[in-house]
Amino acid sequence: MARTAAALIIGNEILSGKIAEANLVELARMLRSLGIVLRRVMTVPDEIDVIAADVRALSRDHDVVFTSGGVGPTHDDVTMAALAHAFGVPVVVDATFECLIREFYGDNASEGHLLMARVPEGSEVVFDDEVRWPITRFHNIWSIPGVPEIFKLKLKLIARKLGADRPILSRAVFTKLEEANLKPLIDQVVAKFPDVEVGSYPTWSDPTYRTKVTFDSLDAERIAEASASFASSVPADQFVRSE
Amino acid sequence: MARTAAALIIGNEILSGKIAEANLVELARMLRSLGIVLRRVMTVPDEIDVIAADVRALSRDHDVVFTSGGVGPTHDDVTMAALAHAFGVPVVVDATFECLIREFYGDNASEGHLLMARVPEGSEVVFDDEVRWPITRFHNIWSIPGVPEIFKLKLKLIARKLGADRPILSRAVFTKLEEANLKPLIDQVVAKFPDVEVGSYPTWSDPTYRTKVTFDSLDAERIAEASASFASSVPADQFVRSE
Repeated sequence: MARTAAALIIGNEILSGKIAEANLVELARMLRSLGIVLRRVMTVPDEIDVIAADVRALSRDHDVVFTSGGVGPTHDDVTMAALAHAFGVPVVVDATFECLIREFYGDNASEGHLLMARVPEGSEVVFDDEVRWPITRFHNIWSIPGVPEIFKLKLKLIARKLGADRPILSRAVFTKLEEANLKPLIDQVVAKFPDVEVGSYPTWSDPTYRTKVTFDSLDAERIAEASASFASSVPADQFVRSE
Repeated sequence: MARTAAALIIGNEILSGKIAEANLVELARMLRSLGIVLRRVMTVPDEIDVIAADVRALSRDHDVVFTSGGVGPTHDDVTMAALAHAFGVPVVVDATFECLIREFYGDNASEGHLLMARVPEGSEVVFDDEVRWPITRFHNIWSIPGVPEIFKLKLKLIARKLGADRPILSRAVFTKLEEANLKPLIDQVVAKFPDVEVGSYPTWSDPTYRTKVTFDSLDAERIAEASASFASSVPADQFVRSE
């Protein structure tokens, strides 16, 4: 069985529309490349009780959980407090984290910077030679800063730490037919390849095709067969391309 | 009290990273403009049981709920079935919806198109002169197609139907100081204006500033006061602009 994952995106700024969320797609693609199945994503406000209840449930139901946001030094950064609350432990200063902050900022290290060394008791502070500023793993929960540039950088570190399972493979067939008229052909391939996950995605903005049909599986041969079987069922003048 | 909202984003393609989710920010901004508070967003796979359980809980806990995706005619479009399952009612053909589909497609209306007229029993089929293709409201749940161009169009229709409360207002101050060093000044304004929601957002990519501090409230005067009080506390050479 593939490992499962969930994510908790934390921040009033996402729910108010001040900022367009940009981290989920990066996380989803990283997990996909590792063969880990992302099952559930929740977006919640900067509220300790809400975050604590949700992260506790997500942690219980999935192999690995990621939080995005709320790990800075200001009053609206409550992720560490919420995680500690969820598991009934105190927030403590991590000596390694504090040392890394002092190393990073030198004489400019302020009280505000050092606040970021406060983590739920029992956390592991994770870093490596490529990513020196650490992130926190607490139980099966990785807490990542929400700023997209930083988030992407941390994902590389996490991918190295999690390691890869067998990746999920995908193929796609693009056609000029609209979804409603493709339905009988899609139903055929779904029935014939029950072990392949088939997805159907219309577009209204791409002038080159109307519907993209995707075939996902761990088995390269099966998705090649399913994709070819479907492509050959599409009328030649409605077929655009396979990839 | 402001009305509350939640959203359920449905689709394997989001969780696998095949598609970057684009509807949430549009929904969030629309709700914000109406004065409705978006409290929670969940992203889940195309699975009837998962969707049914989540939509039921979201519907119970919020004034209004939106689903994005899963309303087309293919096998992976299970939103209508899941909503019906959640409330223990059958899926039925809505005569108005069927009539509008026949009107829209004329002689090209296929069995696949007509499948889209199937809705949970008790649904209202909503359209107006500007948006002729209907969407479904079932209890307090509005179901919107996931294709971004269509989603945006439907939001306008929904906004007209929901009507506006008093909008939440916002001001922002941009500074060159990093968040950790701004913290004492932010703590001051938070303590002085407990009725104003203060947010603090660092950037690593904008060369013109380091931290944006936002002030939100229903009361224009209070956010003007809070914003001015904070701006005047920032050293002049670190202040960038207010807006």
